[in-house]
Amino acid sequence: MPTKIQEMTTTEFAAAVKRNPIVFLPLGATEGHGAHLPLGTDLYQPEALCARLSDEFDGLLAPSIPYGQHSSTRNFPGTIGIESETLKALVMDVLLSLHRNGIKKAVVVSGHAGSIHMAAVKDAAEEAVRTTGMRLMVLTDYDIAYKHPLKKNAEYPDGHGGLIETSRVLAVRPDLVKMKRKKGKFIDPGHMIVPDPEKFYPQGMVGDPTKATAELGKEIDAFIFDRMCELISKNFRE
Amino acid sequence: MPTKIQEMTTTEFAAAVKRNPIVFLPLGATEGHGAHLPLGTDLYQPEALCARLSDEFDGLLAPSIPYGQHSSTRNFPGTIGIESETLKALVMDVLLSLHRNGIKKAVVVSGHAGSIHMAAVKDAAEEAVRTTGMRLMVLTDYDIAYKHPLKKNAEYPDGHGGLIETSRVLAVRPDLVKMKRKKGKFIDPGHMIVPDPEKFYPQGMVGDPTKATAELGKEIDAFIFDRMCELISKNFRE
Amino acid sequence: MPTKIQEMTTTEFAAAVKRNPIVFLPLGATEGHGAHLPLGTDLYQPEALCARLSDEFDGLLAPSIPYGQHSSTRNFPGTIGIESETLKALVMDVLLSLHRNGIKKAVVVSGHAGSIHMAAVKDAAEEAVRTTGMRLMVLTDYDIAYKHPLKKNAEYPDGHGGLIETSRVLAVRPDLVKMKRKKGKFIDPGHMIVPDPEKFYPQGMVGDPTKATAELGKEIDAFIFDRMCELISKNFRE
Amino acid sequence: MPTKIQEMTTTEFAAAVKRNPIVFLPLGATEGHGAHLPLGTDLYQPEALCARLSDEFDGLLAPSIPYGQHSSTRNFPGTIGIESETLKALVMDVLLSLHRNGIKKAVVVSGHAGSIHMAAVKDAAEEAVRTTGMRLMVLTDYDIAYKHPLKKNAEYPDGHGGLIETSRVLAVRPDLVKMKRKKGKFIDPGHMIVPDPEKFYPQGMVGDPTKATAELGKEIDAFIFDRMCELISKNFRE
Amino acid sequence: MPTKIQEMTTTEFAAAVKRNPIVFLPLGATEGHGAHLPLGTDLYQPEALCARLSDEFDGLLAPSIPYGQHSSTRNFPGTIGIESETLKALVMDVLLSLHRNGIKKAVVVSGHAGSIHMAAVKDAAEEAVRTTGMRLMVLTDYDIAYKHPLKKNAEYPDGHGGLIETSRVLAVRPDLVKMKRKKGKFIDPGHMIVPDPEKFYPQGMVGDPTKATAELGKEIDAFIFDRMCELISKNFRE
Amino acid sequence: MPTKIQEMTTTEFAAAVKRNPIVFLPLGATEGHGAHLPLGTDLYQPEALCARLSDEFDGLLAPSIPYGQHSSTRNFPGTIGIESETLKALVMDVLLSLHRNGIKKAVVVSGHAGSIHMAAVKDAAEEAVRTTGMRLMVLTDYDIAYKHPLKKNAEYPDGHGGLIETSRVLAVRPDLVKMKRKKGKFIDPGHMIVPDPEKFYPQGMVGDPTKATAELGKEIDAFIFDRMCELISKNFRE
Repeated sequence: MPTKIQEMTTTEFAAAVKRNPIVFLPLGATEGHGAHLPLGTDLYQPEALCARLSDEFDGLLAPSIPYGQHSSTRNFPGTIGIESETLKALVMDVLLSLHRNGIKKAVVVSGHAGSIHMAAVKDAAEEAVRTTGMRLMVLTDYDIAYKHPLKKNAEYPDGHGGLIETSRVLAVRPDLVKMKRKKGKFIDPGHMIVPDPEKFYPQGMVGDPTKATAELGKEIDAFIFDRMCELISKNFRE
Repeated sequence: MPTKIQEMTTTEFAAAVKRNPIVFLPLGATEGHGAHLPLGTDLYQPEALCARLSDEFDGLLAPSIPYGQHSSTRNFPGTIGIESETLKALVMDVLLSLHRNGIKKAVVVSGHAGSIHMAAVKDAAEEAVRTTGMRLMVLTDYDIAYKHPLKKNAEYPDGHGGLIETSRVLAVRPDLVKMKRKKGKFIDPGHMIVPDPEKFYPQGMVGDPTKATAELGKEIDAFIFDRMCELISKNFRE
Repeated sequence: MPTKIQEMTTTEFAAAVKRNPIVFLPLGATEGHGAHLPLGTDLYQPEALCARLSDEFDGLLAPSIPYGQHSSTRNFPGTIGIESETLKALVMDVLLSLHRNGIKKAVVVSGHAGSIHMAAVKDAAEEAVRTTGMRLMVLTDYDIAYKHPLKKNAEYPDGHGGLIETSRVLAVRPDLVKMKRKKGKFIDPGHMIVPDPEKFYPQGMVGDPTKATAELGKEIDAFIFDRMCELISKNFRE
Repeated sequence: MPTKIQEMTTTEFAAAVKRNPIVFLPLGATEGHGAHLPLGTDLYQPEALCARLSDEFDGLLAPSIPYGQHSSTRNFPGTIGIESETLKALVMDVLLSLHRNGIKKAVVVSGHAGSIHMAAVKDAAEEAVRTTGMRLMVLTDYDIAYKHPLKKNAEYPDGHGGLIETSRVLAVRPDLVKMKRKKGKFIDPGHMIVPDPEKFYPQGMVGDPTKATAELGKEIDAFIFDRMCELISKNFRE
Repeated sequence: MPTKIQEMTTTEFAAAVKRNPIVFLPLGATEGHGAHLPLGTDLYQPEALCARLSDEFDGLLAPSIPYGQHSSTRNFPGTIGIESETLKALVMDVLLSLHRNGIKKAVVVSGHAGSIHMAAVKDAAEEAVRTTGMRLMVLTDYDIAYKHPLKKNAEYPDGHGGLIETSRVLAVRPDLVKMKRKKGKFIDPGHMIVPDPEKFYPQGMVGDPTKATAELGKEIDAFIFDRMCELISKNFRE
Repeated sequence: MPTKIQEMTTTEFAAAVKRNPIVFLPLGATEGHGAHLPLGTDLYQPEALCARLSDEFDGLLAPSIPYGQHSSTRNFPGTIGIESETLKALVMDVLLSLHRNGIKKAVVVSGHAGSIHMAAVKDAAEEAVRTTGMRLMVLTDYDIAYKHPLKKNAEYPDGHGGLIETSRVLAVRPDLVKMKRKKGKFIDPGHMIVPDPEKFYPQGMVGDPTKATAELGKEIDAFIFDRMCELISKNFRE
């Protein structure tokens, strides 16, 4: 059972801070992921991962932020996004507030991996590190997930809402994944910044999720978890 | 069962928008509430309320924002706050994004009722209304809760973490409320803006939660729910 | 005769700072107050109050800020408002500049009491206190005025431009108050954020100002002054 | 008698707007002006000028802004300044709010003439003009005052707190001008941006105010008033 | 000879706009690139590329921006960087100003490829596209350069200041490349955000530049140029 | 040969910083200068001046910023401007980054002399000086150029794109100056802030450039250079 900050009293939190715990902060998004995956796809994954990691390292699980910045999926129905400046401010405020609370170590895991989104998060983290001296690890779980061999698929290169992501959601929220799934391809916009990026995702997703299974998802999750454990052990070694 | 936006697919969301639903957006906080209540107290209450209202009005439940702005409880261990500018930007971005998605009606319920916090939320809402013409209802559930007769207690005037709040948390998350509870008084700072506002909350809470029960909480919740139903019916009548 | 900062030379100001005086900063507004009261209503009241307090405590009277933030009266002719961000920046800049000048104690009194307006002022004050360690007292004179028994009127609950406010303006600027006065009621918008808030003030004011007199105003002003003297004596006691 | 917006009711203001009046907005400052002039020197001058102009053109006199941005006098005791961004926002908000009120013509006169201060004001005005199409005239009264022959003085070149300024304050607030006056010289910092600009004003003022008289002040004020009348007549001719 | 905007008169520019030209905007940086490459490395490359492309497409070459945002090389001597917010504002202002000038097509090429840097540029471009409808292509030349086979080097994976970059600088500014060159490796910080990122670049560069030659650089530049020509032809086809 | 920062390696830069050099930062603009001068006129002049000064004082030449803020020439074809806030942030970031690099002395020379533009630059410099204690000299070369006797011309008062400026561009970039030149007059807008400021520059320039020669330009440049050398020697004397 992870120790959720929200579920602790102020007294319990004060006591926990004394053992210098790592805080895990999951960042999600509310974003169209094709016709078969829920809008909260990017939240369920890092939440589950952070819960396990928090258990493993006797850390604290901070309340998730369920909104992120979106570019290419901006116009999909149900994508509810925030500006990059807002995201940066939000992450920075939370990190600085954790630091004022005596927290010195934190791991921020974003389920959404958009480049402007991740830059806002990292920009905030850099400023927090320079200002406070906190030790911060920041990544998207897809930095690791996409190192899995399944990423490579000659005909349907895996991506947003594809085989890996669908399997991982099946592993944690099988009730929310539709059985009927399409294969999808991303059309390269050739570095154009377009007002209608959805045209480059005709199926709203990328890859071949037809073969996704919860077992596969669990295997990938174990792959990510193991690598994260190694990294965290190394990064926060005294 | 409320329809959670996070659990819908993009396709389902697009279909739901067509029936012009009300979106319910719960705003929480992570804030010290005395030694007996969890830090997520201000989130559990509006989440439960919005879930019921969303059901009642066939609306959509948006992902909760679990961080708010804090002044008087800022230095309590476990209060993890964000700046008023960040909160305003966050609420405005979410409202504008909902509007871009075709949403025309929304109810924002904040469990936290701090005056700077609520002002940031309302400021965002006013700008969203002026810009988009959306129909927005914004309040803290305590605008209604504190109309309950229990608010008045000669010796221990009810407030932050007091009888009403403790009862309400008992109603929705009894597992998180401690049996051992203190009575608490607020010391009036006489309109001083102080760097150590916690000194004016020696017990970290205000009121007499010793008699709080889940039954009482349910009664208060029903009181709030009924009043909200009336207001919503009236406010969003075509 | 209050010591107005504007009327002092730089030399006199430097000398005055040495005795560690309290600076009084009146915040006004330019805002519709019904057909019988001047737009500057919210300025005349705190200016008169601060002048008396400054005399009483041998303090310094800072130049008044005559513009504030307005929500519900925003569309009344003659309401000239500024954004909440601007107001916050303005109050913070003035406080920080006073602090650079060696001022360590200040009382900010706002004649306008709108919730977003006051939140901006308090937000600025909190930041100034945290940054500088100044001792700051911040309130609207209506925090006290509305504790006067006249506030309660079964048929016409007193409020914006009502009996208390009209009486107080009669006490300080009788030349600007019209003899012909209406009674007015506020229509509760039920927590809706509306683009046309003026519709909820059909008379542009709230209460029964028909019985307002300068004598009543002076009595209320004395009531406020006395309470302020107590608070200031207590708050700034060494 | 100028028509002060603050002294009008909302009803009177609404009526006045119909005749398409010019609004006059005086910008002051709270700034050290040598040992003989009051800190409000830069406010008294444009206020008196705008009052006369408002009368002359049947215009409306807006509430003065008594704080400005300061560079070279920043460290003089009693200089209470605001940041350039704050000043820009403040002037812009007031202009946009006037425009929302139906005002189409305005004259902004700043008694303070610092280059960063005036740039902030003009920057705001340019944005307001581009956004609203208002007709705006913006200047410091010293743009005209320094065209007076008295500006040239071989030994003591006239400037901040000098002969012209002292005479003008004598014309409007003789009670606030000290009889004992020094001559002062400005030491050229050679385009250096320095942390201690006050060193370049050893007397805190520039010029020879020993011969200043109220008569001279009235003559200069008439010189400014006449030129302003010409300009306004020409600029706002239909 | 490229048509440099800076070298045109206003009249010539007005004439050129009529033929609806593509504007090429090179973004550089001033950044440490190991002991053998100049600080302007990231500017020389896109400037040369844009000059050729501008010629090829009869476009206009906009003045280069020589400063960018830096994270990992921030503490190298000679890295002169700007904040991400500043970079975003700068790129957006230039794009909006080009649009006001009648420019409808632009290609932005950044020599620096840092992820926060590129996110700021793209964020600005997205906002410009949404606001103006301009057609914008945005990339770093390294998006293409790193598709060259030389990128893969088992022992010294090519990167910042490595074989490709050194060869390309040799192709355009051979006078600025030192003969004495080290091989360098990047030490993976394991997703940590660190205050001393330079420790992860012990040689200040990454790869094996010892075999870099101008010929190789020209070959890579041709590879990039050809791909860019294809992309531009396709992207801006009417 | 000036030492251009862009052309140095990180190692060379680190070595150079040890001798405590003055950094010269040229600020240009891309702005319409009549039918005879290039849009980059305001860049070529300070770049040439700073190069000479950098040589003379064994300083370092920083990469030029080629965009500035424009008011009166905003609508001339080819004027590509940035907002004042962007310019301020840009100059401040560069100065702070130089300071982090160990630079303690800098001279900022802007070829463009617009009042809002220069205020943004000075505002940034003041903040940098107060924050870092750097020694900064900030000016436009026209602060000196316009002290040259040629400035006075009874019929065609010299100004933007006039005799002095044309001569100076002839001195450094004769290839870019057209032989066919008009005389131009500025029409005084009488302190109006107008949406179409170009109407007040019917010829797009001010003065009589018909007699401009490279010789004259060199003479003026020598005049500026000499005065700058004196100022720098004095300002940065230990």
